[in-house]
Amino acid sequence: MLNIKGIAAAPGYAIAKALILENTELSVEKRTVQDGDMEVTRFREALALSIADVEKLKQRTLEQLGAEKAEIFEAHLLVLNDPELLSPIEGKIQKEGINAEYALHEVSAGFISMFENMKSSYLRERAADMKDVTKRILSHLLKAKVLDLAAINEEVILVAEDLTPSETAQFNRNFVKGFATNVGGKTSHSAIMARSLEIPAVVGTKEVLQQVKDGDLLILDGMKGTVLLNPDDTTVAEYRLKQEQYEAQRAEWAKLRNVPTVTKDGKQVELAANIGTPADVANVLLNGGEAVGLFRTEYLYMGRASTPSEKEQFTAYKAVLERMEGKPVVVRTLDIGGDKELPYLELPKEMNPFLGFRAIRLCLERQDIFRTQLRALLRASIYGNLRIMFPMIATLGEFRQAKTVLLEEKTKLAAEGIQVSGEIELGIMVEIPSTAVLSDLFAKEVDFFSIGTNDLIQYTMASDRMNERVAYLYQPYNPSILRLVKMVIDAAHAEGKWVGMCGEMAGDPTAIPLLVGLGLDEFSMSASSILPARSQISKLSTEEMRKLAAKALACGTAEEVIALVQRMNM
Amino acid sequence: MLNIKGIAAAPGYAIAKALILENTELSVEKRTVQDGDMEVTRFREALALSIADVEKLKQRTLEQLGAEKAEIFEAHLLVLNDPELLSPIEGKIQKEGINAEYALHEVSAGFISMFENMKSSYLRERAADMKDVTKRILSHLLKAKVLDLAAINEEVILVAEDLTPSETAQFNRNFVKGFATNVGGKTSHSAIMARSLEIPAVVGTKEVLQQVKDGDLLILDGMKGTVLLNPDDTTVAEYRLKQEQYEAQRAEWAKLRNVPTVTKDGKQVELAANIGTPADVANVLLNGGEAVGLFRTEYLYMGRASTPSEKEQFTAYKAVLERMEGKPVVVRTLDIGGDKELPYLELPKEMNPFLGFRAIRLCLERQDIFRTQLRALLRASIYGNLRIMFPMIATLGEFRQAKTVLLEEKTKLAAEGIQVSGEIELGIMVEIPSTAVLSDLFAKEVDFFSIGTNDLIQYTMASDRMNERVAYLYQPYNPSILRLVKMVIDAAHAEGKWVGMCGEMAGDPTAIPLLVGLGLDEFSMSASSILPARSQISKLSTEEMRKLAAKALACGTAEEVIALVQRMNM
Repeated sequence: MLNIKGIAAAPGYAIAKALILENTELSVEKRTVQDGDMEVTRFREALALSIADVEKLKQRTLEQLGAEKAEIFEAHLLVLNDPELLSPIEGKIQKEGINAEYALHEVSAGFISMFENMKSSYLRERAADMKDVTKRILSHLLKAKVLDLAAINEEVILVAEDLTPSETAQFNRNFVKGFATNVGGKTSHSAIMARSLEIPAVVGTKEVLQQVKDGDLLILDGMKGTVLLNPDDTTVAEYRLKQEQYEAQRAEWAKLRNVPTVTKDGKQVELAANIGTPADVANVLLNGGEAVGLFRTEYLYMGRASTPSEKEQFTAYKAVLERMEGKPVVVRTLDIGGDKELPYLELPKEMNPFLGFRAIRLCLERQDIFRTQLRALLRASIYGNLRIMFPMIATLGEFRQAKTVLLEEKTKLAAEGIQVSGEIELGIMVEIPSTAVLSDLFAKEVDFFSIGTNDLIQYTMASDRMNERVAYLYQPYNPSILRLVKMVIDAAHAEGKWVGMCGEMAGDPTAIPLLVGLGLDEFSMSASSILPARSQISKLSTEEMRKLAAKALACGTAEEVIALVQRMNM
Repeated sequence: MLNIKGIAAAPGYAIAKALILENTELSVEKRTVQDGDMEVTRFREALALSIADVEKLKQRTLEQLGAEKAEIFEAHLLVLNDPELLSPIEGKIQKEGINAEYALHEVSAGFISMFENMKSSYLRERAADMKDVTKRILSHLLKAKVLDLAAINEEVILVAEDLTPSETAQFNRNFVKGFATNVGGKTSHSAIMARSLEIPAVVGTKEVLQQVKDGDLLILDGMKGTVLLNPDDTTVAEYRLKQEQYEAQRAEWAKLRNVPTVTKDGKQVELAANIGTPADVANVLLNGGEAVGLFRTEYLYMGRASTPSEKEQFTAYKAVLERMEGKPVVVRTLDIGGDKELPYLELPKEMNPFLGFRAIRLCLERQDIFRTQLRALLRASIYGNLRIMFPMIATLGEFRQAKTVLLEEKTKLAAEGIQVSGEIELGIMVEIPSTAVLSDLFAKEVDFFSIGTNDLIQYTMASDRMNERVAYLYQPYNPSILRLVKMVIDAAHAEGKWVGMCGEMAGDPTAIPLLVGLGLDEFSMSASSILPARSQISKLSTEEMRKLAAKALACGTAEEVIALVQRMNM
């Protein structure tokens, strides 16, 4: 039994025979052709077959996974109908008297290399579309027998170098029980698809394709991120049990998808999701998210040559608001600088970037960037339930200044006759100790708080959470953290304001009982944690958790707090 | 009137004519001599005259400035009597048949270059001694007319490239009213001497020697660090007034040198000094320091190839304890790592050194280093009133672990029959927010706290105090800082423990009223701030300051707090 380690990309377990998906390199030879017209016709036929394929894939995805996942095939259809691509190919066939395969290969290689060198990550992704489409047309031209993924009719675990969007879209979940790839990460397209399909996946193994043969028995552990090759009977039995338990739990979670989050004794809280792009919304809804508790807007600013326009941002914010259908969406204004660099801002190198010029500090100085974002947000506000949140607020002065800028832009928009929602809540991240300590004063001026535990912990403990040597000090359960959280919640409630949490702690099963006890109103976490959290909270009593939290606040160390929560679970 | 800017090295004002101290380069020519014996005699005569000079300087310094300042001349005498230096010179004269000047120059140049290349800063300083001594012998050999500083008999401000210890030791304070140099910094030897002599000094001007001519009228502003060249009458009159006020204030301060620090309404507090080396103790006592509130031990570890031995450390700790004559001495264990690098520890480069592997974090891992320091401290404890303090404590676990190590070393020493004081107080720096927030629990286990505001502010505000772009967030008066300080003081007093402060804030005239109001027990600052602080505190009423502090704690911003304190002063 060989244990191949990779990255846990989608949860769950699968036990099945391996099916190797060879990366069929379609070799293209250059030939001269006599009849250019006939060759063009051959090309157009392959094109038509490809379009038909993609239409079918699109329809199938639309039905099974929804509009958002089908978008990828919209993009493919755009390429397949793009005269800028097609006419150079046909021109090449005619003028140079060469075969369609070679003309296609030459022209699309040019586009691919162009896209791959683009600064914009959006355009770089277009290179992947182009490759996928080219491969499809080529296979029709060559009448190559490409493995028909849709035709798989026995239970398998797919093993491949990587998987394209077209490939994953063809999976029949009844037979493709999971997959393992050599490349990829937690956020690569195939990983996202696996989570949508709700099949386990292990990616980035570097060697699974080399180690596994067609028909080998595999166990895919999507929790640990491992692939067990030819496991013994005991291991198989053990995993069958794990699989059953997991499925039972999933079934229970699925029932919670559309119900409110309520404790055993009737206290309702809100479970929200942290997202990074509009594309993440589908997964939020699929997992029963009641809100977006943190929409990080940095992706809009990254991998490009200049700041995004007001219109570009407006489109993104509007998309999220609309897709959330009136559910609250907390958008965090730009949290860039420090370790997240934007080359076009030309920020000087800092000795301690985590204690440096970032987020609101940068926005208050670079108001051109800040005002553009605020305008885009204000304009998008009428399409849903928008809440705006400033990151890294350390002083009341900073909050007041940022709020003034927001109000100025609101006034300007009104003067321009542009409609803005009158009900935008305005809040701050509480992620700097000074702000937690002064939360009673902040609570009089903000509409809500969202506690950013990742940063709050690292500043409170004076410990860089990325630094392995001091990782032992990154202690979410340190009583000092719990006391600061309590301080913030009590301060907000005294002023009738609500408090959320959008750090990793909010979705942590050990923290949840304590946070319920401390009175947290909104828990924002990764979408996949929402249903387990709802299930957990439904079994907790607020009254008991209040007592638990009181005990935790009096503990001296993180270890004591963890032991306390664990004792409760026994 | 030209305004020459430099570094304020010693406080006060001087108005006098300039006296230029030329750096008389004694040129050395190589000559052959016939009679080697006669040349050796000539050398020995110059040596004897030099020894007589230095003896005189030493005696004079001893009488005027005390034993510690006279130590430099002890070092010179050691050189002047060192056979390792003298016999090569005499040998060279005899064997090579050359003149004494050249032989001296050659031999001492060899030693100087050797010392200058040493890793140990102690040995590098020996190069300066060697230069000073060589110059003195040479001037006797050449019968060069060197400006006799001791003979100056009119009021002057000296202007020089730099000043050697021999030169500053010859100053007659009645006539040398101050000095300005091209090179040097706040901690260079001449700056330290100026503060001991209580004359103003401006160093590091880069150009004062080039701009000023003998006899030019100068105003030396030791507060601002400027030299005014040929000032107009109005400016002179203005500075005469400043000078009078300063002198009056100094006279008042001087009366406070040996009295306790007591508020108007009879509350006594302790004013202590922060020191970096045993040599700083004299200045502490001169300024009426009642204790050493922070002895930074890093200097022992820096500028060398390996960690200092137990014996070397013992000698340093014993020296400070003895010189403080039973007054308390708080020694902080090694606070190295992060930005303060020690090449021989081979620490990996960190992305955020201020949030990294430093101080107690490093000591708990490198227990070899930690235990050596603790043993040296324990052994030195019987020579005075030692208090040990751990830096950068973030969790109770760290404190308990460090304390265990200390107790283990104590037990070992007892087993070795070595005497250790039974009354060593053990405390921690409170400079990490988590520790301030949990101070009620820490207070049960420590003997005292010392609040390190420099770090506490930077972590609480998440702002690197060395980073100009976020310097506006380094806010000692932010109400969040005051609240944390109050939390720590109240927690300690509830357990009958005392609280000191050793950050820059402790000596800040704006902070002092607030700290008195918050109940701080010990204020540790730079020695020169002690008498002004004592004077300030003697005019404050604890009861009124308590009210002031209560108002400050309810303020929203640092600006409001500053305005509050300023209103009180009006």
